[in-house]
Amino acid sequence: MKKLLFLAIFSLLYQFSDAQDQTITGFFKENTEQQLQLEASFDKNLNVESIDKNLKLLSSKPHHLSSPGSKTNAEYILGLYKKWGWDAAIETFHVLFPTPKTRILEMTSPTSYKAILKEPELPEDPDSGQTGQLPTYNAYSADGDVSGELIFVNYGLPDDYKELDKMGIDVKGKIVIAKYGRSWRGTKPKVAQEHGAIGCIIYSDPMDDGYFKGDVYPKGAFKNEYGVQRGSVMDMVIYPGDPLTPGIGATKDAKRYDRLNAPNLLKIPVLPISYHDATPLLKALEGPVVPNDWQGGLPFAYHVGPGKTKVHLKVEFSWDIVPCYNVIAKIKGSKFPDEWIIRGNHQDAWVNGAADPISGLSAMLEEAKSIGNLLKTGWKPDRTLVYCAWDGEEPGLIGSTEWLETHQKELQQKAVVYINSDGNSRGFLYAQGSHALEPLMDEIAKTVIDPQTKVSVFERKKARDAIMANNTEAKEKDMNKTSLKLGAMGSGSDYSAFIQHAGIPALNLGYGGEGNGGEYHSIYDSYHHFTTFKDPGLKYEVTLAQTAGRAVLRMANADVLPFDYTHLYTTINGYASELEKLLDDSRKSTQIENELIAANAYKVAQDPTKKLTVPATKSDVPYLDFSPIQNSLVTLKKETDSLKAAYRAKINDNKVSPNFNRSLYRAEQQLLNKDGLPRRDWYKHTIYAPGFYTGYGVKTMPGIREAIEQRNWNEAQQQIKINAEAINRLADYLETAYKVR
Amino acid sequence: MKKLLFLAIFSLLYQFSDAQDQTITGFFKENTEQQLQLEASFDKNLNVESIDKNLKLLSSKPHHLSSPGSKTNAEYILGLYKKWGWDAAIETFHVLFPTPKTRILEMTSPTSYKAILKEPELPEDPDSGQTGQLPTYNAYSADGDVSGELIFVNYGLPDDYKELDKMGIDVKGKIVIAKYGRSWRGTKPKVAQEHGAIGCIIYSDPMDDGYFKGDVYPKGAFKNEYGVQRGSVMDMVIYPGDPLTPGIGATKDAKRYDRLNAPNLLKIPVLPISYHDATPLLKALEGPVVPNDWQGGLPFAYHVGPGKTKVHLKVEFSWDIVPCYNVIAKIKGSKFPDEWIIRGNHQDAWVNGAADPISGLSAMLEEAKSIGNLLKTGWKPDRTLVYCAWDGEEPGLIGSTEWLETHQKELQQKAVVYINSDGNSRGFLYAQGSHALEPLMDEIAKTVIDPQTKVSVFERKKARDAIMANNTEAKEKDMNKTSLKLGAMGSGSDYSAFIQHAGIPALNLGYGGEGNGGEYHSIYDSYHHFTTFKDPGLKYEVTLAQTAGRAVLRMANADVLPFDYTHLYTTINGYASELEKLLDDSRKSTQIENELIAANAYKVAQDPTKKLTVPATKSDVPYLDFSPIQNSLVTLKKETDSLKAAYRAKINDNKVSPNFNRSLYRAEQQLLNKDGLPRRDWYKHTIYAPGFYTGYGVKTMPGIREAIEQRNWNEAQQQIKINAEAINRLADYLETAYKVR
Repeated sequence: MKKLLFLAIFSLLYQFSDAQDQTITGFFKENTEQQLQLEASFDKNLNVESIDKNLKLLSSKPHHLSSPGSKTNAEYILGLYKKWGWDAAIETFHVLFPTPKTRILEMTSPTSYKAILKEPELPEDPDSGQTGQLPTYNAYSADGDVSGELIFVNYGLPDDYKELDKMGIDVKGKIVIAKYGRSWRGTKPKVAQEHGAIGCIIYSDPMDDGYFKGDVYPKGAFKNEYGVQRGSVMDMVIYPGDPLTPGIGATKDAKRYDRLNAPNLLKIPVLPISYHDATPLLKALEGPVVPNDWQGGLPFAYHVGPGKTKVHLKVEFSWDIVPCYNVIAKIKGSKFPDEWIIRGNHQDAWVNGAADPISGLSAMLEEAKSIGNLLKTGWKPDRTLVYCAWDGEEPGLIGSTEWLETHQKELQQKAVVYINSDGNSRGFLYAQGSHALEPLMDEIAKTVIDPQTKVSVFERKKARDAIMANNTEAKEKDMNKTSLKLGAMGSGSDYSAFIQHAGIPALNLGYGGEGNGGEYHSIYDSYHHFTTFKDPGLKYEVTLAQTAGRAVLRMANADVLPFDYTHLYTTINGYASELEKLLDDSRKSTQIENELIAANAYKVAQDPTKKLTVPATKSDVPYLDFSPIQNSLVTLKKETDSLKAAYRAKINDNKVSPNFNRSLYRAEQQLLNKDGLPRRDWYKHTIYAPGFYTGYGVKTMPGIREAIEQRNWNEAQQQIKINAEAINRLADYLETAYKVR
Repeated sequence: MKKLLFLAIFSLLYQFSDAQDQTITGFFKENTEQQLQLEASFDKNLNVESIDKNLKLLSSKPHHLSSPGSKTNAEYILGLYKKWGWDAAIETFHVLFPTPKTRILEMTSPTSYKAILKEPELPEDPDSGQTGQLPTYNAYSADGDVSGELIFVNYGLPDDYKELDKMGIDVKGKIVIAKYGRSWRGTKPKVAQEHGAIGCIIYSDPMDDGYFKGDVYPKGAFKNEYGVQRGSVMDMVIYPGDPLTPGIGATKDAKRYDRLNAPNLLKIPVLPISYHDATPLLKALEGPVVPNDWQGGLPFAYHVGPGKTKVHLKVEFSWDIVPCYNVIAKIKGSKFPDEWIIRGNHQDAWVNGAADPISGLSAMLEEAKSIGNLLKTGWKPDRTLVYCAWDGEEPGLIGSTEWLETHQKELQQKAVVYINSDGNSRGFLYAQGSHALEPLMDEIAKTVIDPQTKVSVFERKKARDAIMANNTEAKEKDMNKTSLKLGAMGSGSDYSAFIQHAGIPALNLGYGGEGNGGEYHSIYDSYHHFTTFKDPGLKYEVTLAQTAGRAVLRMANADVLPFDYTHLYTTINGYASELEKLLDDSRKSTQIENELIAANAYKVAQDPTKKLTVPATKSDVPYLDFSPIQNSLVTLKKETDSLKAAYRAKINDNKVSPNFNRSLYRAEQQLLNKDGLPRRDWYKHTIYAPGFYTGYGVKTMPGIREAIEQRNWNEAQQQIKINAEAINRLADYLETAYKVR
């Protein structure tokens, strides 16, 4: 009976679609129409009102990890899934999560100032004055009570310390103040600690997300003088997840590190502040005026320090083991129940988190609702769907990482793909992921329609890239672009463990660029802010659900899974060329710099009154042997081309073996190196990792790239070998896939 | 007796110099040593104390055109020259110079604010509270009393109005407020007037020369909240000098324009203000938030306007004909009295003008003093020296222009070169000028020693260029530079009439880059400011005197005048290539932009909520016939190469005719086009002119370049022909020079 209803609806929809001649990668011709009708039906079920209801409700209270609100939200989500016909449960982990007991920041010299460390309630924003908000702090700061001179370190990146060196300024034994931005926040205290600082203050400069960008909240979207970005400073580039249980699930009885020995936790105290609180501190600094590009948006000339400025920073935390609630919902696949299409978005926020994460979560829930409606028509996915609402993402991707680590073996067998989303807003598609999935996403991006302009989201993004390109050649290149390129994955959201630790193919999807603001991780990331500035009308919530939902449904029902490894080959080949160029450029620039130093050029060119030091000569950059990579890429090209031919044959023959599909989705695991990256063995993927000194920012072929950047030539040569071995493993694996099965 | 003393001193100096084997371009071997000894003696007479005395005295009171201080200074300078043995006199012109009677700027809506329009006295700066200061105003603003809505136009450049067009904002009937900078100030009201604005306010944004650049005065060198840049808005790119007497000397009885018909005077009122006065106006603006790169340094989000902001601007001036005192001092040449080496620097300031112009003037006076000392030893220059202290430079290069126009015929016969300086400070050599003089300046730059680093000023500048270059290729290129390149001359100082109107070879010399500040044209351009921030110890005052003095002495005594036209050929050839590339680039970018428009890319990419208009399609860029230029350059290369061979032969033969030298220095006049540039016929030079929309900024081969920039293809083709004719004239002239004489 249900099946009949299902077919009736589909035929009705079919008459109004122009999809009759479309093909979809991975689908036999005979199954294409049905899939397109399914997707049309899926889209029809997506509804702004129900997204709005969830967005409003789930952001109606603070709901950080361990808060009552987080538990309520998890239970609400669980209830929704069950109502929609999913098999859902909460899976709980037990993880370390510090919350503040004491937060003091005061300037004691040359004048007194006690930082207020508090974002005020705004009458315009009904959620801004709620109780239960986490105070402004950086999670996993060390406990500390330090006093000392203050030094302004710009964004607190390694290059900024080189600039300080030039000025003869040392941060050892001092407290640093850094701007938010240009790197993941955790990089700032880490680099400060490496340089001997005893404390770190991070503030939001108005140049970065305050009045320099537009009107401030509540008049506009940007950060007002009191807004503070909370956030984790756990060193996630060593490993994410519960700091006490790297590599294993943080179950009740898991073996745990003592927190003082946890390798990814800081030794110094850190505190984030507003530009209201930063102003008196920065204004009091003496010492040299900052280099030109360090000046921020506050209305005075910034100085580096120290001078007479002394500050006292005290922070103490409750270091609690708290429950972390992942809501996991499943629909068993009718044909391949042991092949899982996993979709996830986190549910925890720093405060109310309407944008981060509820915008992405509400879109994902809408997909789940729509799929629930499809179920009611009698439809079943071929493969199992697993929809996950993660807890503890904000402190360190904890919920997703612990789940992956707990179920790693099973997931490496069964997980076909992990599809992530997070904060979402009005604007342009962004899509990162495993490059074998590029044709899938390309096809989707060309069929999802931008709600504002009614062209495909691919066309809109392409137009934007072309308009924004700053020279004719780049514009021409963008205009002639015929397919979507996936970005490489760094870190910053829940895909990290899947792709980088377990080699499970992943995608990260969202929209943005026209909903910029300064609300991130503050109490002002609210329903009012979101619906006023970030996506009024919630059109892009629907668009995200369409985009991610289509990816889920195509992966769920594909006859031949849409992995095209020729795209991965092309991408890796590009990275390899970049690395050779990076080394050559480094050699040339080292040579020129050394010549300039030898010719006394710095000594002669620099302003003598500034007493700048002259850079030290660097050792010459050797030539490295890239042939292992080059040879492995020749093999990979051959095998991926042959695999593609085999793939096409199967599509034409309407015939494929389950083994072939399994090989396709498990192949990426061949790129893992069991020993992981140097000094951070949790990261196993040889092609994608977050940068050791960038955090969220990706480093591709990270073992080689970072060794070159750090001028560790021996390691670079070793990593070339390790990367080549991984590529060869993948090539061999793919050869077996298309030959034997 | 004197001659003996002279020789005795020279031989003494000679023993301590390592100059025995040096050669100097333009000097026979037999005369080289004597010249080097002369220069050493000249340098020895330069003295920081006497520079300091003049700097202090001449900047001790306001001395703008028509002020008592200007007359006192002129008479003091005259006295110095006479004391030093020069034949000196004041030559007076009678020129139009408006000074304010009424200055009112007030905001009348949404709130009231009356601009204070006054720079306060500072206890740290003893000169800042003097009477007789010109109030803050823009000379040659029209009288006006206007009220209207206010629009922020960024820097007020043509491209800024294109941005406003995109936003659908029209300035017609409105008052605009523009930032100082990025163009000559006069461009701003001119472009505003072209777009229908009824008034123009110009303010100094702290991002450009205020706290964004460093501490503000008196703590630091940069502009404090009350500092205002005065300055002329006469449209000097039409013609400089007295607005009533273009092309002729402003003598007492000269035929004058009625000022309301003067072609280079504005029709709308203009007023410069401080960022203190600008803040309430900018803060009150509504309308769209500015494009990202329009945001300035004030601590709020800038809006374009208008909204409810209304302002009232009233300015009235006394339009007086005032005396303009040029002090002209001469030493008759002993061999070639009718060949003049002219050196000049202006003497008038906007207020006290310690930097602008007294720093350059004091250096020039020191040269005159030192030359006076040489005279006392019995020495005489071979050619006549003419040292000029110009009045009325600030309002519009008036003193120098009127002198040139009055004596144009004689000067085109006699003037070998005009060597200019103006404000000077600590830092790096800058040198612009006629490119045939490149080898002369190269040689000088390699022998003048930088006072801070003790390398040559050439080496220091080269090192700085290499250090500052932002890529390896540029660094390498800078490092391998073996000779000084002269910049091309735009406008902004007294060389303009000489080179651009009369074709007299010119140089503009100075030091800077380590003495930046915000004092320009304000009451804070004082002795205190200069000696504290711009050149403490006045070392670069001596260095400028050495540099310009050496140029004067070499030109005065050269056996064969050091003009090397192969350098001019190379330079013009480079410009011609640039123009071909400019046209090609314009063609490509037009094509791509039109394709983007046709493909709806703007419509699709732009944020629909901003309701931006889509750019209009442009007509295709045609191919132009560059062959006339290309052929003329082939000829010029041949003739300049032959001339160079003739030149070398004369040096080797120790024999040259006066005719040959005369041809060398008069050759540049062949590059003049009698009809001048389109729409501004005062500018006769076909190779160098200030840009119609840049003001001070140069446009090389301006007839062609600006026609291409303005998409006037017919004019571009005509100008190619005109330029080619000028180049051919020069080539023919040079051929005659080396063949016949």
